[in-house]
Amino acid sequence: ETTASAPARSHSIAVLPGDGIGPEVVAEAVKVLDAVTGPAGVTLEKTTYPLGAEHWLETGEVLNEDTMERLRGHDAILFGAVGAAPNDKRVPSGILERDLLLKLRFGFDHFVNLRPATLYPGTTSPLAEPGDIDFVVVREGTEGLYAGNGGTMRTGTEHEIATEVSVNTAHGVRRLVRYAFELAASRERRKLTLVHKHNVLVNAGRLYQRTVDEFAEQFPEVAVDYMHIDAATIFMTTDPARFDVIVTDNLFGDILTDQAGAVTGGIGLAPSGNINAERTAPSMFEPVHGSAPDIAGTGTAQPTAAILAGAMMLEHLGHADLAERVERAVRRDLELRGTSARSTSQVGDDVVALLGE
Amino acid sequence: ETTASAPARSHSIAVLPGDGIGPEVVAEAVKVLDAVTGPAGVTLEKTTYPLGAEHWLETGEVLNEDTMERLRGHDAILFGAVGAAPNDKRVPSGILERDLLLKLRFGFDHFVNLRPATLYPGTTSPLAEPGDIDFVVVREGTEGLYAGNGGTMRTGTEHEIATEVSVNTAHGVRRLVRYAFELAASRERRKLTLVHKHNVLVNAGRLYQRTVDEFAEQFPEVAVDYMHIDAATIFMTTDPARFDVIVTDNLFGDILTDQAGAVTGGIGLAPSGNINAERTAPSMFEPVHGSAPDIAGTGTAQPTAAILAGAMMLEHLGHADLAERVERAVRRDLELRGTSARSTSQVGDDVVALLGE
Ligand SMILES: CC(C)[C@H](C(=O)O)[C@@H](O)C(=O)O
Ligand SMILES: CC(C)[C@H](C(=O)O)[C@@H](O)C(=O)O
Repeated sequence: ETTASAPARSHSIAVLPGDGIGPEVVAEAVKVLDAVTGPAGVTLEKTTYPLGAEHWLETGEVLNEDTMERLRGHDAILFGAVGAAPNDKRVPSGILERDLLLKLRFGFDHFVNLRPATLYPGTTSPLAEPGDIDFVVVREGTEGLYAGNGGTMRTGTEHEIATEVSVNTAHGVRRLVRYAFELAASRERRKLTLVHKHNVLVNAGRLYQRTVDEFAEQFPEVAVDYMHIDAATIFMTTDPARFDVIVTDNLFGDILTDQAGAVTGGIGLAPSGNINAERTAPSMFEPVHGSAPDIAGTGTAQPTAAILAGAMMLEHLGHADLAERVERAVRRDLELRGTSARSTSQVGDDVVALLGE
Repeated sequence: ETTASAPARSHSIAVLPGDGIGPEVVAEAVKVLDAVTGPAGVTLEKTTYPLGAEHWLETGEVLNEDTMERLRGHDAILFGAVGAAPNDKRVPSGILERDLLLKLRFGFDHFVNLRPATLYPGTTSPLAEPGDIDFVVVREGTEGLYAGNGGTMRTGTEHEIATEVSVNTAHGVRRLVRYAFELAASRERRKLTLVHKHNVLVNAGRLYQRTVDEFAEQFPEVAVDYMHIDAATIFMTTDPARFDVIVTDNLFGDILTDQAGAVTGGIGLAPSGNINAERTAPSMFEPVHGSAPDIAGTGTAQPTAAILAGAMMLEHLGHADLAERVERAVRRDLELRGTSARSTSQVGDDVVALLGE
């Protein structure tokens, strides 16, 4: 057994609270992170970047190159949520999504978008018989239909043609699939499901399927199967407990993880990691949910997803023990109090109080 | 009030039972169709085409031009399901889907893929609190990512690039959206939801959104909203009763209607119409489910979706009254007996017996 090098004791973290409930939930994540790292002698040096709709309206910056370079210097990024209210006509649809969130994912090569789905004790699923849900979606994060490839011709006329190109590369698919197999091999059930639509999207589908077949030979201990995306949404409704590790492309992963959030007690509990597993740039951790402008400022946003995203960040920084403590505290908190009405900051306080147990 | 021209009393129907459970469920649909049309003096002249995996293995034909032309001569097509068992290595993935099913949809310009979702009394949803579900998905059927546009470069090497192009046209989107608005205006709740992902798929998304905005002015009585596809899968889980008419693209429609089938008591109840609303070629009616090779031959397949697809065909042929009778009989059958274990042919018999009520 080799001895892993000890994790650093101090980390420089960029905090991007964003818009709407973003700052509210990130504040609780930071509260919990400070409470768990401090006594362990680990320091998180935090720099806050006020990016988002407000910042853009005030300064005209969504995310410029200078800020990108400063962000690149951090060890990790903790992200809240971005997006103005949908009826706020000052902010065109998608600007913040593409020029901020996706720019970070693409610019920092976050090729694994890791999204665990767990049905915690104390939470309720909208499914009548949810079973024992505990799976992870390994979503591609840097290509597919998110590549921003495509365009329009004869725009605005009755002859308009609008295209969107899904770009998939052997390089991108291989590193994703390898990660998914390694993860599956490390889990108890050792199951991997490729979700795609290779009966229609033959080009991308074959590339995914062939890559999975190749790695399957290297990982004989992992049981592999395949499911079309449409069938996957059925099983996500009728039997989500069947899944262990799902590997899928960027768009299918987007769709499936929101559905997964819904079946596991709500999107307010679902964290995610945008991971550059080659560590050539900082990885980024965020709740799956958005900025929820409708409840912003009411102090009722659920900070659990953000807190769990913080735990994923700790694990990525080499502190699996601290991550584990946060997760345990969250689990216990949900067990004791469920997701019932507490203020955002009360949930943070309650989780902090349970860290010691 | 104008007098509509009387519907024809005789129709020529192409029956394509297909593979797996396809022939089993189509037989029951035909049984019910014959029972409801006969006494009303309406004749369905049926020609069966043995297309599908078996036919392809025996003759090498998936669907040739000659057969296409013969099919074109019919008034409508009743389709079962195609697809060999997934582990049947003799049939490459997607051949039957693309060269048969999609060839028909594209060749006969089935631009509206109409998929009603209803939670019938007597059936059970996997959702704990499904509410009163009764909506229709108006899915585009002739473009988007199904266009078969795309390809690979450096195929099979570590430098492979595989693309899939979603092609969307003003022509295609306009006729779809018009149909959806007309449908919404004719329904009680008069609600239309555009589902897309226009924050990421900006080109196609803008075209869809702009087209919906245009028609919204012509249909002030229809309440219009927008939802991202990922959010739609959440609401499909937590509150499907909120939907009335959903209009969406080909792939999102595929995904959403399988999920809709699951939340409304199972895909065995979900019918669909592939409609050429300009009537320049025959429309095609089919259950949403596939060929289910695993249960083929056991006599346990649920024929309800196929029977309801038959009702949609009757309505398309101008016999709304007969369609209504079939739907009522199915509703009553489910109310009385649910979806519990009956043989495929028993369900057909039971529905026939209820036609008179
Ligand atoms: C905001 C949006 C661009 C983003 C995505 O589609 O990836 C979000 O839905 C998510 O899942 O993180
Ligand atoms: C079989 C497949 C090509 C088809 C589709 O994707 O449209 C099916 O899933 C459907 O929904 O009818």
